[in-house]
Amino acid sequence: MTYSFEQLHTFTLGMLTKIGCPADQAKTAADVLLSADLRGVDSHGVARLSGYVRLWEKGRINATPNIRVVHETPSTAVVDGDGGLGLVVAPFAMKVAIEKAKIAGTGWVSVKNSNHYGIAGYHAMQALAHDMIGISLTNASPLVAPTFSQERLLGTNPIAVAIPAKNQPPFVADLATTTAANGKLEILQRKGMDTPTGWVQDKEGNPTTSANGVKDGGALLPLGGDREHGSHKGYALGSIVDIFSAVLSGANYGPWVPPFVAFLEPDPNPVGEGIGHFFGAMRVDAFRPADEFKAHMDNWITRFRAAKPTPGNEKVLIPGDPERELEAIRMKEGIPLLDPVVKDLTELGERFGVMF
Amino acid sequence: MTYSFEQLHTFTLGMLTKIGCPADQAKTAADVLLSADLRGVDSHGVARLSGYVRLWEKGRINATPNIRVVHETPSTAVVDGDGGLGLVVAPFAMKVAIEKAKIAGTGWVSVKNSNHYGIAGYHAMQALAHDMIGISLTNASPLVAPTFSQERLLGTNPIAVAIPAKNQPPFVADLATTTAANGKLEILQRKGMDTPTGWVQDKEGNPTTSANGVKDGGALLPLGGDREHGSHKGYALGSIVDIFSAVLSGANYGPWVPPFVAFLEPDPNPVGEGIGHFFGAMRVDAFRPADEFKAHMDNWITRFRAAKPTPGNEKVLIPGDPERELEAIRMKEGIPLLDPVVKDLTELGERFGVMF
Repeated sequence: MTYSFEQLHTFTLGMLTKIGCPADQAKTAADVLLSADLRGVDSHGVARLSGYVRLWEKGRINATPNIRVVHETPSTAVVDGDGGLGLVVAPFAMKVAIEKAKIAGTGWVSVKNSNHYGIAGYHAMQALAHDMIGISLTNASPLVAPTFSQERLLGTNPIAVAIPAKNQPPFVADLATTTAANGKLEILQRKGMDTPTGWVQDKEGNPTTSANGVKDGGALLPLGGDREHGSHKGYALGSIVDIFSAVLSGANYGPWVPPFVAFLEPDPNPVGEGIGHFFGAMRVDAFRPADEFKAHMDNWITRFRAAKPTPGNEKVLIPGDPERELEAIRMKEGIPLLDPVVKDLTELGERFGVMF
Repeated sequence: MTYSFEQLHTFTLGMLTKIGCPADQAKTAADVLLSADLRGVDSHGVARLSGYVRLWEKGRINATPNIRVVHETPSTAVVDGDGGLGLVVAPFAMKVAIEKAKIAGTGWVSVKNSNHYGIAGYHAMQALAHDMIGISLTNASPLVAPTFSQERLLGTNPIAVAIPAKNQPPFVADLATTTAANGKLEILQRKGMDTPTGWVQDKEGNPTTSANGVKDGGALLPLGGDREHGSHKGYALGSIVDIFSAVLSGANYGPWVPPFVAFLEPDPNPVGEGIGHFFGAMRVDAFRPADEFKAHMDNWITRFRAAKPTPGNEKVLIPGDPERELEAIRMKEGIPLLDPVVKDLTELGERFGVMF
């Protein structure tokens, strides 16, 4: 089933208003959520809406948060999200980073007391219109085992970096620090297929190719997959994201990060408040004239795109290319939703009196 | 053969003085170079000394550079290395970042017109004594093929991040954005062994397990190895390092980065000056009280170290553990050098009248 952007945006807006979000915040949250659907990160879009609502029903999301800066220097700030939707807290914090950068050259904001913030790339991209480089990191519920660990201690902890160009579209990297995201496992589960090696370990900590590995108590593996293929690097990157997002701000880190699913309770002895994010904005002209920088970015992008491809592949892609192309298609042709998602959203709407 | 730290440091100092480096710069460069040998990154230590000298002989390294800030804002600067040794330019630039952070909360410095800067981790670690987080990135000679590219367009472009703790040793990640570094290929070549999958492609762009793959015109692969295992993520990370280091500063980027080896000529039509680096320093107390942050880092490190290990593995390591342990051993027991390195340094010393 395919739905138009407007239809899904209107429904999301309706639902968020229904649970008490102020109009401007509901609009922001719907924009962030829908951008995931448009860009093909289906696991982070409207498919998650009922999850957010269930967390609100449990009192774990505050629909009317007092989001505020609680500490700052010329180029830094800590934002307290007051338990709000990450979809609302993150745009607030990214705006603070951008305002800091206007004056100090760069702005860096660590966030505590927040919740899941949608796709990392959306927030990084907010810097582009200001001729700034945007950076967006977040920690997440522990599903990933560090190299040599049987236990899940990290989230899929993404890194997103958006860099403006001149005539070329921007460079937008948005990557989980794992070999593969959980969403890809769900697709393989539905098809009854195995995973490639290096994606998952079982609950004893042995490598497995079962798409149910994580569900059955195992873990996702850091980018690299195993030690021989550099998993200690993916583990280090995921750790850096965790520390910048949560140890700097005072949020929960590592295994203490509260689970996204409402049926799992957060740790009764938290080490911080909520989940954490980290944002950066760097004014390009704090380094060199923006026009000069962007002309060289065009040259960088053009050269990489022109690289001779390997046998059987059509061309070299620039980070952000596939998502941008999909966004244009889905804006025109609509957003496909899986049957279970349609059913879930229909029931949600019925329960709250919002037509899907 | 094993040599003491003092012996190798004295020799390096002597050689660098001989080619005209001012005493303080020669000392800094020797410190940086030797830290690689101590920490076990043998390919970036004294084994490279004759390579630097050959570049100087070709007029591609300036032994008496006028290193200076050419642009700045409260939290940023661009440093022109004036063609100096990266081993000298990088510590200068990192110091600028730290001074900026003292006032603005953070400092970010992009560097042009530099050369190879030794190990990335050394520079990041300079922030630790100031209760700051240190970040160090550099681009390097193109040896790496982006996902789907037959051509080498990126260097091994490392990311280093050093984070202070309280009673625990610091967290120090220092990772090339490739599956494996070139040094590991050389070890396998000497042993006549194949590489694991996902390390190398041949000159046609097909996967290979030949340890001579890169030598024979192939390429190293980005972290992840292939698309199915996330190589597009390693490619994106290496690209970010390249852009922050060189497009921001005005250095050469991508395939234009000058080769380290003196027998290969730089591109006759450069897009910038020399190679580029990027440094960051973030004052921990620009976010929360330093003591509080460091106590939570201790808790983070202790929890990860205590994780139940996977079958057959002894324990979970914290980034920086292996290098720190090796440093203590080598400081006491000496630094082992391979025969070809000893021969190379002996000849170098004889040629310049410096006793090895």
